[in-house]
Amino acid sequence: MTVKILPPGVTASAFDQALKAFAGIVGDEWVLVTDQDREAYRDFFSFSDTHHLASGAVAPASAEQIRALVQIAAQYRIPLWPISRGKNLGYGAAAPLLSGSLVLDLSRMKKIEVDVENDTVLVEPGVGFYDLYHHLQERNIPLWLSVPGNSWGSVCGNALDRGVGYTTYGDHTSRICGLEVVMPDGDLVRTGMGAMAGAPTWQLYRYGFGPAWDQMFVQSNFGIVTKMGLWLMPEPESLRGFDLEFDKPEDLEWVVDTVAPLRRDGTLQQSPSIGNWLRQAAVLTTRKEWYDQPGALPDSVIEAIRKRFNIGWWSISVRFYGPDEVTAASEKVVSRAFEGRPVLSRKDAVWHRGQPREQSAWAGVPTTMPLQNANWHGGRGGHVGFSPVMPTNGRLALSQFQRTYARYNEFGMDYHGSFALGERHTTNVNQVLFNKDDPQMLKRVQQFFHALVNDATRERYGEYRTHIEYMDLVADTYDFNHHALRRLNEKIKNALDPHGILAPGKSGIWPAAYSKERSDA
Amino acid sequence: MTVKILPPGVTASAFDQALKAFAGIVGDEWVLVTDQDREAYRDFFSFSDTHHLASGAVAPASAEQIRALVQIAAQYRIPLWPISRGKNLGYGAAAPLLSGSLVLDLSRMKKIEVDVENDTVLVEPGVGFYDLYHHLQERNIPLWLSVPGNSWGSVCGNALDRGVGYTTYGDHTSRICGLEVVMPDGDLVRTGMGAMAGAPTWQLYRYGFGPAWDQMFVQSNFGIVTKMGLWLMPEPESLRGFDLEFDKPEDLEWVVDTVAPLRRDGTLQQSPSIGNWLRQAAVLTTRKEWYDQPGALPDSVIEAIRKRFNIGWWSISVRFYGPDEVTAASEKVVSRAFEGRPVLSRKDAVWHRGQPREQSAWAGVPTTMPLQNANWHGGRGGHVGFSPVMPTNGRLALSQFQRTYARYNEFGMDYHGSFALGERHTTNVNQVLFNKDDPQMLKRVQQFFHALVNDATRERYGEYRTHIEYMDLVADTYDFNHHALRRLNEKIKNALDPHGILAPGKSGIWPAAYSKERSDA
Repeated sequence: MTVKILPPGVTASAFDQALKAFAGIVGDEWVLVTDQDREAYRDFFSFSDTHHLASGAVAPASAEQIRALVQIAAQYRIPLWPISRGKNLGYGAAAPLLSGSLVLDLSRMKKIEVDVENDTVLVEPGVGFYDLYHHLQERNIPLWLSVPGNSWGSVCGNALDRGVGYTTYGDHTSRICGLEVVMPDGDLVRTGMGAMAGAPTWQLYRYGFGPAWDQMFVQSNFGIVTKMGLWLMPEPESLRGFDLEFDKPEDLEWVVDTVAPLRRDGTLQQSPSIGNWLRQAAVLTTRKEWYDQPGALPDSVIEAIRKRFNIGWWSISVRFYGPDEVTAASEKVVSRAFEGRPVLSRKDAVWHRGQPREQSAWAGVPTTMPLQNANWHGGRGGHVGFSPVMPTNGRLALSQFQRTYARYNEFGMDYHGSFALGERHTTNVNQVLFNKDDPQMLKRVQQFFHALVNDATRERYGEYRTHIEYMDLVADTYDFNHHALRRLNEKIKNALDPHGILAPGKSGIWPAAYSKERSDA
Repeated sequence: MTVKILPPGVTASAFDQALKAFAGIVGDEWVLVTDQDREAYRDFFSFSDTHHLASGAVAPASAEQIRALVQIAAQYRIPLWPISRGKNLGYGAAAPLLSGSLVLDLSRMKKIEVDVENDTVLVEPGVGFYDLYHHLQERNIPLWLSVPGNSWGSVCGNALDRGVGYTTYGDHTSRICGLEVVMPDGDLVRTGMGAMAGAPTWQLYRYGFGPAWDQMFVQSNFGIVTKMGLWLMPEPESLRGFDLEFDKPEDLEWVVDTVAPLRRDGTLQQSPSIGNWLRQAAVLTTRKEWYDQPGALPDSVIEAIRKRFNIGWWSISVRFYGPDEVTAASEKVVSRAFEGRPVLSRKDAVWHRGQPREQSAWAGVPTTMPLQNANWHGGRGGHVGFSPVMPTNGRLALSQFQRTYARYNEFGMDYHGSFALGERHTTNVNQVLFNKDDPQMLKRVQQFFHALVNDATRERYGEYRTHIEYMDLVADTYDFNHHALRRLNEKIKNALDPHGILAPGKSGIWPAAYSKERSDA
């Protein structure tokens, strides 16, 4: 028999009453509180089986139902943890930060409204990348998605967590244009031009009149997004680019410095990622095919992996989307920047409208292939992301790599890192792969993670996104003026959500009602 | 003798005490309350001499001084109206919305920190476009500004009012990256990565960790921006483009539909503006050279104006910035879209790095030339902007033009309109020119403006920006769910600024303390 999980400070009988009231809104079948239900809302990639446990879930079908649910939650003081589709792997999946929270599962809300004239879409949170992709394909709508490497999640949820993709629309959060949001008090707000009822420009102009709020609802707990406007890429006339391989770890420095000015001047409009040999090996093979010893993979194994896949220590892919003449010219300019440089090998990619479309994220086609990497160590696989933001600078990138690589070796982990070059910043994405069935490894991962955060903080590099387990740890590194940002966040939190029922602890933002739950970071 | 203006509900003696306290922070010479001082903070383009009068001004030199000032203002309940340089002509200039407010004049704060490696700048509010331009020129820093047509204002203030420029960096507010803000309670917050003390990425990555707040401080009254990060354009290798003239009012429809897909697919990355013949005539001549009758200019005069300047009914300019091959290819693609269309005339523009730079806003050089248009009617000239946001669609643009043109004729005003094509939206900018010394005309302008707002609201087009006189009127048109946005704005306003001392009424946001001052819109 399992122990029933309750929200903090809520009695079993009050919880039951609240569940009855929730059922009155959504119907009994959408109040999910069996052991099996609770199991379904666990973070099955997590390193802990005792943290972040839901008391159950409730699954509404509409914004109107959510407006009623939040009022009941406030009355009974039941913290709600909204999820879109709950596929935020590496960052917590469907699990709530605060144990005992009731998951507000929005995956039933799947409306899609495409504006074919203006190349935009309005999606509900339950719409996955595959849903939207098929919607467009079935109707022959010439719009392309930008999808993340693992595309089984929610289009809306991904943008709300600042997930990224591969095309020029890959900075998903920056392509948000207009939200509909249920506030913690049950009010319903539309942002931007949506604040004018019936405005045809809701999905066309971001800012509206006065302060703009879209980014307030990103990575936060101030409201429940029930509709999101997003811009989509019109199918380009051509897609061009190339993949390059580099032989040495030290090549990272000049590669970053070569690409950086081309990102800043707009010649290259997507964010290329410079990643290491494990990116491919971990997806296509498992570790035991290569090595059966503890400790990080030795150089000889790295050599063998590179030989088998015919890859460099690092690789990079760049892509251009647009009219044929323009992508050709852009590709020429970027190629020229690599001339005379020690490039190990190059592979070209070219596509023209009318040709069969490459089934890859480069062409905005959803994929789940990279997800295979969780099996690298065998057992019940998991991974956790560590992603500090740093300047785009070769020397700094190389020393970040060297410092991090030394930590991987120290903790006996296999290096899985990349440097994604934004318009001005670089995100150093580390995917820490582990086996949940190896308790020693889990313990090491925890220590390793803390070491990585400490190292980065010393350089004043902050993470752009983190696992629910580490939200307080990371929020604590944002320390200007004795955590002024936290004071602002929490002042607004308490004003909008006086009972603190919405996602307490998300991004380190704790309402007064639950402030004692904050981790001692 | 003039009447001394006091903040609402504040006695003369309390006001004097407050001024003494302010002087204790900034020094006597920076508390400005003579008649002459007050005159300097009037909206000298306004149509009213009795509204929007400041009680005086206080001019701090630093964020630390501002932190002290807001605490005194809260103690004495003195509403503060922050201005950067007060050049927001057409929208209220330096004048406060609420009469009796004390202007917080930030024009002494003029620090500039350029990051030459990353193409960004951190500016204080008093830095004007000319200041920054000269700073870059004197140091031979190869970065270009984006400047508005009248460039005598503040770089920071312009971005905070969502002003626009001509280059690919012309949507200034979208190039903000990180703010430092004094909150109404005196707290000091840095947004984005600036929330981590000493982070080298403050001006490189916009969002930071958790909710992002830059846009919260735009067109609002939640805090006083004391530093703003902005991205600057690296000097391009080439600048190419062309100007086209069109003969008939009806050409607007196909021109919009020709350019729209090229904006959406990113071939054209700046926002071209399709404007009419008065744009040139009003800058280079005055009305009485052409016509001395009341009523809108007749067609015969329009013909004469067009003949003299050799221009169309409409004109458009497009520009491309970047590597030579890429601008050449882009220009070719956009030229092709106009092939076989009824273009009256075409003028090409081309520049390469090393050549003398064109002294125009297209090349990011500040200018005040367009400001001349205020003299069109003679007398003390003024203008007010009317700028609804609409979809980018030829049919809708033409009917917006026809509807608006009929109103200009009805009210006897000379048509000065343009359609600026954003990536997805269009802003229909109208500059209503008038003579402050003609009371009949001022009355007509007021009625005309209300008619324009009503017409646009019927189409569900909302304004992106408006004059302080019309902020309540425009805010009232944002009516979704019985003004849900206003409820959100004012809930946050009251939480952050309980005494309502910061810019009450800005963008229609009234703190509880002054809610009775809201116009009956």
